[in-house]
Amino acid sequence: MKLATLRTGGRDGALVLVSTDLTRAVAATGIAPTLQAALDTWAETAPKLRALAADLEAGRAEGAFAFDAAACLSPLPRAYQWCDGSAYVNHVELVRKARGAAMPESFWTDPLMYQGGSDSFLAPTEPIRMASESFGIDFEGEVAVVTDDVPMGADLATAARAIRLVMLVNDVSLRNLIPNELAKGFGFFQSKPSSAFSPVAVTPDALGAAWDGGKLHLPLLVALNGQPFGKANAGVDMTFDFPTLIAHAAKTRPLAAGSIIGSGTVSNKDAGGGPGRPVSDGGLGYSCLAEVRMVETLLHGGARTPFLRFGDRVRIEMQDATGQSVFGAIEQTVEEYR
Amino acid sequence: MKLATLRTGGRDGALVLVSTDLTRAVAATGIAPTLQAALDTWAETAPKLRALAADLEAGRAEGAFAFDAAACLSPLPRAYQWCDGSAYVNHVELVRKARGAAMPESFWTDPLMYQGGSDSFLAPTEPIRMASESFGIDFEGEVAVVTDDVPMGADLATAARAIRLVMLVNDVSLRNLIPNELAKGFGFFQSKPSSAFSPVAVTPDALGAAWDGGKLHLPLLVALNGQPFGKANAGVDMTFDFPTLIAHAAKTRPLAAGSIIGSGTVSNKDAGGGPGRPVSDGGLGYSCLAEVRMVETLLHGGARTPFLRFGDRVRIEMQDATGQSVFGAIEQTVEEYR
Repeated sequence: MKLATLRTGGRDGALVLVSTDLTRAVAATGIAPTLQAALDTWAETAPKLRALAADLEAGRAEGAFAFDAAACLSPLPRAYQWCDGSAYVNHVELVRKARGAAMPESFWTDPLMYQGGSDSFLAPTEPIRMASESFGIDFEGEVAVVTDDVPMGADLATAARAIRLVMLVNDVSLRNLIPNELAKGFGFFQSKPSSAFSPVAVTPDALGAAWDGGKLHLPLLVALNGQPFGKANAGVDMTFDFPTLIAHAAKTRPLAAGSIIGSGTVSNKDAGGGPGRPVSDGGLGYSCLAEVRMVETLLHGGARTPFLRFGDRVRIEMQDATGQSVFGAIEQTVEEYR
Repeated sequence: MKLATLRTGGRDGALVLVSTDLTRAVAATGIAPTLQAALDTWAETAPKLRALAADLEAGRAEGAFAFDAAACLSPLPRAYQWCDGSAYVNHVELVRKARGAAMPESFWTDPLMYQGGSDSFLAPTEPIRMASESFGIDFEGEVAVVTDDVPMGADLATAARAIRLVMLVNDVSLRNLIPNELAKGFGFFQSKPSSAFSPVAVTPDALGAAWDGGKLHLPLLVALNGQPFGKANAGVDMTFDFPTLIAHAAKTRPLAAGSIIGSGTVSNKDAGGGPGRPVSDGGLGYSCLAEVRMVETLLHGGARTPFLRFGDRVRIEMQDATGQSVFGAIEQTVEEYR
């Protein structure tokens, strides 16, 4: 089933079920007022949600209405946890290579993960407002899962069973603030402002064969100002699958229901094994500007593509084999914050 | 007024008001079911809570009962944000000195802050369960504030006005996991397991002269296995006050109501300006084991005090000028997690 959160109601919005084709929705607030409330009591709540979803799909749900992604908040408008891995080690290796640094061999076996801020996510179509272009504003297209409770020390099978929902993320990053923050040693903070998630969160069973229990095998379609920018397959070159990322996060503490775990920027190597080529050159492109800039640096000695400017538009979406949008689109413009 | 969260009810517990002397409590769930709910609507909720607190103080609150810290969860059992500064730069300088590294001059003007996990806090008297002593289990005694909504880019005055509550923290740390995580460049994750907060959260006005709007001028009493271990004054040697930490956190994103901002380990220099001496030597002692180990390393070439072992007990408390416990005590034993 597919779930979304409408802007009506309080800080956590109002839970709705959405039809598979994303055209119709029905209020689910009679079952659980919010998505977090549903996740808090998933074992009891999910069967009722599934029954209502079946009614919606069959056209017999009372009070169904046209679904509008622009009326959505992020599925969890605020969450108790958002942590983000760097599962596409290809991306990490490129970052290092572009600055002439070797990547430690352990990065292929020990996941990189940072703790993100989760108190104030952007809506899927909300502008990215920033005080200055000089921050080096970038998008990062990613896949994320939402977990149920995960006990401390969970093994991979337990972690896999705890995956309740899948969605997309734009993990907005401020590239020019990163070097100073990482040099301080405590990780990202100001360089990772509010993220935005896809309008719709989807249960793994509704993803069909594209979901193998650990990875989502579909291209992540990224467009910049209406032009195709990336179509890397999220199931390819993902060194650490979601159960591995969840188990990593749960090594020394439990994760509470509603924890969001991100994949890191989706990134594929070129067919030839080298750094990916732009979509316009027949390649799979990129899921963030930093990566094309790294490739440009490797090829030409310097970056050519600028970071985002006020007025730029980013769109992040995924389509299934039939061309149907799976999660709806994240579609954001960059605006000056005053 | 003083607020606490009882273990009854759901994941977020049940809100109670507590008398100034911490002997009596009364349910506040008729006003707001949980502390987060109260913070979400503070402007409307606070006056009602204050009226009930006055009734409790005057002995005329219906249904009042004996307050028991052992029945408490952390005031926010789960929160949308927990971020922790390192405001006592003395502590940071000692860490560096003990490993022979100079501290960048910018550390005196640009706060260190990390994003912590906030989905599963320990109760104030809940054991610290860890799979292995080899993680290097340590406590960190700190002060924290809880904010209302803070707009992105807030100035210091706006940040100061957003402080709603003050409490204590045990920011549990796994010292032996830190070097590898910081070397990876993305900050703490597994090395910062669940934190615990004091049983009671206190509004700034109820702290009297000890609260100056930015710092809390009282000794933080830390005991290890019943022996005094630290009594550093939280108002002394705090390089960055809470409004400065909040403004730092809010530079590129808003903070949502209920965000918790920590001070970092409370640490005072010795009266002579050198590293602090143990309480048993007439000094102010320490608020974490890492600091005494650093001082031992500087003085003797190696650490002598071990990290926490299964069975060890940590107590963190603050008393006002009359000896009254302000926040109740965090009191935790270390246990093996199986």
